[in-house]
Amino acid sequence: MPHSDPPSPGYRYSFVDDYSEGAHPQLLQTLIETNKTQETGYGRDSLCTLARQRIQAHLGRDDVGVFFVPSGTSANAISIAACLRPHEAVVATSSAHIVTRETGAVEAGGHKIIQVAPQDGKLTPQTIRRALDDNWHFPHMAKPKLVYISNATEIGTIYTRQELVAIKRLCEEKKLILFLDGARIGTALTSHKNDMTMRDILELTDLFWIGGTKNGALLGEAVVVKDPELASEFEFYIKQHGSLLAKGRIMGAQFAELFNGELYYDLARKANACAQLLSQGIVKAGFTMDAATETNQTFAVLPLGLIGRLKEHFNFYVWENRDDQAVVRLLTTWATELGQVDKFVQMVHEWAVENSRSA
Amino acid sequence: MPHSDPPSPGYRYSFVDDYSEGAHPQLLQTLIETNKTQETGYGRDSLCTLARQRIQAHLGRDDVGVFFVPSGTSANAISIAACLRPHEAVVATSSAHIVTRETGAVEAGGHKIIQVAPQDGKLTPQTIRRALDDNWHFPHMAKPKLVYISNATEIGTIYTRQELVAIKRLCEEKKLILFLDGARIGTALTSHKNDMTMRDILELTDLFWIGGTKNGALLGEAVVVKDPELASEFEFYIKQHGSLLAKGRIMGAQFAELFNGELYYDLARKANACAQLLSQGIVKAGFTMDAATETNQTFAVLPLGLIGRLKEHFNFYVWENRDDQAVVRLLTTWATELGQVDKFVQMVHEWAVENSRSA
Amino acid sequence: MPHSDPPSPGYRYSFVDDYSEGAHPQLLQTLIETNKTQETGYGRDSLCTLARQRIQAHLGRDDVGVFFVPSGTSANAISIAACLRPHEAVVATSSAHIVTRETGAVEAGGHKIIQVAPQDGKLTPQTIRRALDDNWHFPHMAKPKLVYISNATEIGTIYTRQELVAIKRLCEEKKLILFLDGARIGTALTSHKNDMTMRDILELTDLFWIGGTKNGALLGEAVVVKDPELASEFEFYIKQHGSLLAKGRIMGAQFAELFNGELYYDLARKANACAQLLSQGIVKAGFTMDAATETNQTFAVLPLGLIGRLKEHFNFYVWENRDDQAVVRLLTTWATELGQVDKFVQMVHEWAVENSRSA
Amino acid sequence: MPHSDPPSPGYRYSFVDDYSEGAHPQLLQTLIETNKTQETGYGRDSLCTLARQRIQAHLGRDDVGVFFVPSGTSANAISIAACLRPHEAVVATSSAHIVTRETGAVEAGGHKIIQVAPQDGKLTPQTIRRALDDNWHFPHMAKPKLVYISNATEIGTIYTRQELVAIKRLCEEKKLILFLDGARIGTALTSHKNDMTMRDILELTDLFWIGGTKNGALLGEAVVVKDPELASEFEFYIKQHGSLLAKGRIMGAQFAELFNGELYYDLARKANACAQLLSQGIVKAGFTMDAATETNQTFAVLPLGLIGRLKEHFNFYVWENRDDQAVVRLLTTWATELGQVDKFVQMVHEWAVENSRSA
Repeated sequence: MPHSDPPSPGYRYSFVDDYSEGAHPQLLQTLIETNKTQETGYGRDSLCTLARQRIQAHLGRDDVGVFFVPSGTSANAISIAACLRPHEAVVATSSAHIVTRETGAVEAGGHKIIQVAPQDGKLTPQTIRRALDDNWHFPHMAKPKLVYISNATEIGTIYTRQELVAIKRLCEEKKLILFLDGARIGTALTSHKNDMTMRDILELTDLFWIGGTKNGALLGEAVVVKDPELASEFEFYIKQHGSLLAKGRIMGAQFAELFNGELYYDLARKANACAQLLSQGIVKAGFTMDAATETNQTFAVLPLGLIGRLKEHFNFYVWENRDDQAVVRLLTTWATELGQVDKFVQMVHEWAVENSRSA
Repeated sequence: MPHSDPPSPGYRYSFVDDYSEGAHPQLLQTLIETNKTQETGYGRDSLCTLARQRIQAHLGRDDVGVFFVPSGTSANAISIAACLRPHEAVVATSSAHIVTRETGAVEAGGHKIIQVAPQDGKLTPQTIRRALDDNWHFPHMAKPKLVYISNATEIGTIYTRQELVAIKRLCEEKKLILFLDGARIGTALTSHKNDMTMRDILELTDLFWIGGTKNGALLGEAVVVKDPELASEFEFYIKQHGSLLAKGRIMGAQFAELFNGELYYDLARKANACAQLLSQGIVKAGFTMDAATETNQTFAVLPLGLIGRLKEHFNFYVWENRDDQAVVRLLTTWATELGQVDKFVQMVHEWAVENSRSA
Repeated sequence: MPHSDPPSPGYRYSFVDDYSEGAHPQLLQTLIETNKTQETGYGRDSLCTLARQRIQAHLGRDDVGVFFVPSGTSANAISIAACLRPHEAVVATSSAHIVTRETGAVEAGGHKIIQVAPQDGKLTPQTIRRALDDNWHFPHMAKPKLVYISNATEIGTIYTRQELVAIKRLCEEKKLILFLDGARIGTALTSHKNDMTMRDILELTDLFWIGGTKNGALLGEAVVVKDPELASEFEFYIKQHGSLLAKGRIMGAQFAELFNGELYYDLARKANACAQLLSQGIVKAGFTMDAATETNQTFAVLPLGLIGRLKEHFNFYVWENRDDQAVVRLLTTWATELGQVDKFVQMVHEWAVENSRSA
Repeated sequence: MPHSDPPSPGYRYSFVDDYSEGAHPQLLQTLIETNKTQETGYGRDSLCTLARQRIQAHLGRDDVGVFFVPSGTSANAISIAACLRPHEAVVATSSAHIVTRETGAVEAGGHKIIQVAPQDGKLTPQTIRRALDDNWHFPHMAKPKLVYISNATEIGTIYTRQELVAIKRLCEEKKLILFLDGARIGTALTSHKNDMTMRDILELTDLFWIGGTKNGALLGEAVVVKDPELASEFEFYIKQHGSLLAKGRIMGAQFAELFNGELYYDLARKANACAQLLSQGIVKAGFTMDAATETNQTFAVLPLGLIGRLKEHFNFYVWENRDDQAVVRLLTTWATELGQVDKFVQMVHEWAVENSRSA
């Protein structure tokens, strides 16, 4: 569990998270240009319609529901509430965002989360099976019904096609709904390790969402729902959760632009590239990674002395203390300044040189 | 209950609602100017801080909590969830927004709404008392604990100071929490009939919110919480409901600008002025109002023939059919084009002249 | 709404409710006789099995689910929770038990109740249609999905076959679930006005329950579920609500006995017969009824002076004050002592004679 | 996790659970004797009053609330719902009854359970502290607020006074509510290892409950609430959960008898004594225990061959398979037949002798 001084950027450059900046300029421009037209409320506007069409075209299917909600927590809470009966439970890793960062929103909606230990941040058919085996005593136990995964995961790792296929098969065998949290799906699908497209994600899940907030938008996530019956009533859930924005256009405009050509992926590629620069620079200076840098999250094991010096110029999470070292988490985005990445790497390098001399 | 053709503006000018346009230009400008700076997430940014300070200064108290949430439904659901124990109920008019337009969000949060008949859209001490009298059989009945009022109301009327004082006194006597939905508080406080300031609202309620979405912002409502203990945990509720936006700055920037000087009220005044022009023009042409036009909502009783003609050029709700007449609802805002108001009034006038000739 | 001195029987004979006594002796005898055998827990015991078989035989169908729960409130809350999605609402009269006597249990389960004015305590196709017409603005309104009726109703009236058929047809047309609260179904089906059997009830509803608590049992209601899919998971809901008793045998034993021959109906007939004696005696003495006495509830309009005298010997609810008169509610059961009924009627008669003399 | 053939007693004597038989004869006798008197409903009857008084006298305090509910799951769900705000969480062991046997009832009430690994089935200050340390990231994490413990635990172990004092101190330091599930509190307080009285339990917890179902009653648990404000509204929660039985007398009568003298403890002592006989007999035959036999649960490690033979005459849970052995769980109660205990021990002994000969 991370503990850190409160993130207080300003004079220090921030690698704290991937939502420190506002919108990507192209998205802002669309907002400006469409600001004055009158539009229908609650997501029935021309901008949401355009965004929906572009996402459907990108997915190669015009029969799936696409819904815009303001935050990742609302995307997860709404999707899970829409899929489950009161006695049905979610299976997720103990490091899942819904477990560790959503203030019990899933439980507030009435559902138990059955936690299993993550493998590289991921669920596997084996751990899901064990969760099913451990929750058999019906009707005295909540019934496992929905499998929640994140891609990229909370530690920046990604699922391969083979891994996702294996989970999907198990879900079909056991009649489980497979739901994918795509807060960072852009960085996952542009990872050097990735072998899937978003169409694969659509094919291999029951519903998933495309994160806007962490990839260039001011706010907004797009939930993609395959089941036509579920899709036909999905707006009820959104509205009941207070997530059906009157001026839905604000999300429509941004997603329309994100899926205008390759922009969504371009932004994610930039975030990943910055993480690679950080990661490779740190390793080159002689330090180790705590997790493979597969997307835009870099988990490095650094000496406390070095961390202290870096903190003078940068802000980031100290994720886990380990004697005279600690794991730090560095987040990069489409907006990350390359000069700051260079400066960070240089400081790490200099400290390594100084310390090897003195040693 | 309104029934209407689906609101589909575009070629027709819309008086359907007060969220058809984007942001007021000054708000958009602030968003543009602050877009690139790095900010802390989840409402701890400098823009939310500034907005909070300006609202507190406007209210004359720096010890009240001010929290930004994306929608009116979330403002209501979160506030009510934060105030009530599971067995406690809300008292509201049967025309209240939480009763008629929020998909049962209050009930989804576990709470019963005790409905009473509205008087000019409002609650009164008498109707609240009756609700208490009718809900006495404890513990077999949910316990009335929170009184929900809207100012302006759902039909555009407003509370006078005397009316609000009377309700507040009853609430104190009966230990009820008084909660005010201020989706349209701007138009209420700038109504020609108004005799209160926002400081009065603060003094005479336990918590209330200031609507942004319907008064110039792209999204956002500011919930003001007086009780320090409730305020100290209020963010938990916001987060759990999925309403703590990662880039809270988007709401902070807009509210900072709305409360930079008199802008918030200037926008509302414009909306009210347009409603007066519509209302007076319609009355002058010989038609009647179904409710007094006190804010930015105009409810006019018009012949079906006239409505049909108006619909060729304008979009609006037909609220209630009455034989060969109907009540129509016309909404105006800071963005309403005066030329369109004039055109509407002129068409009403022309139809009246034509018809009187033929009669 | 009833207001009364707190029901405190003891020296005064009670007509307050239909759960003042313990179990009917035959039920108690079965409990005693089966007390020592070892049984499987949680409703899988031989007594629940026997009760289930007898109820199924009585209903003429062995393919319906029969589930025992400890109280009427749990029967209603569980059934409604099992049937509805989060955004779906219940339609009921404003006098419905779920509205007036269950502490908001349905809302605590997340569902809105759309209330309509009762007609003789009942719903009609017309009032249901109006509720649908008033709740059309999707997705901004909760979706009406389940119709809740009570037979007998909360004021003791009953549905005729024709009335129930009409409601069922509307429900089928509108895809609504029809749920019948049978807390007093025994007195309904043995009413002199009744033209249905329990098989008709099964045929004309989607699920319903058979009240034990108010008809001879210490506790327990039997929920009958037709839909096989719903039935297959119904125990999850019961367990989650804390209503799956470890020693389910206590309910099984009692229902097995209640449905051993005609006992269930015999007890209800006795309750109804006592009500007829009370009702006819009161009318004969010159007073009027506030509602037709169709089952075991008698609502009589009596002078306050008479009520005061009756209160010296009897305990009952004063349901509604009306100047120098009031409506009183008298409940009778299988255990009501005929001598007390006679005494009550005699006191009413004597008071009438005295007062006519003095007048 | 236990897996077993479905418990199907009958010809086989059952050690499956502690609710296989009906009521203790004295309790049944009280029910019979009080069956015909008229009583006020919903727990305001003379029997509940007597039971309440006797429990209060036993606890040495007449100012605590005592409430009767039908099941352990309802006792837990109601108590937790009554204590917590929506964003507050429970800390419990992963083996806690609320985690493993209540179908997600706590989550259905909206609350997250933070699970920690049990130490001999118990929580410790260290594991609670770790749960707090791991759940610090407010408001993004649910706030730990209530600590749930069971005494005896789910594996039959008990808390010593020192252990409970240490937990209570931590709870006071951290402002946590301490709630004790006493489904088997009778066997805990009569354990040979016990050094507490029920008055100690009252002093060292914030609320707790006294199990009736597993210690001689047909149904019923008595929740003891110290906080006067919480107690004053506790019935609302009970009623809302459908657990306020109309004929509350059924629970009152039984608890009045259980706390008439030492009966409650006598029954528990008998259950514990049988467990000791089983445990010692099994150990004497050369087999080991998987957990110390401190109350009425015996967890023995037996060879599969022996288990097979025992299954011909007895029914019990096979809790965990271990190669050619397995852990079996044997439950004993006030009703356990000593002859069956002897027979069980004898069969174990004979099998051991046979097998040592053949070895």
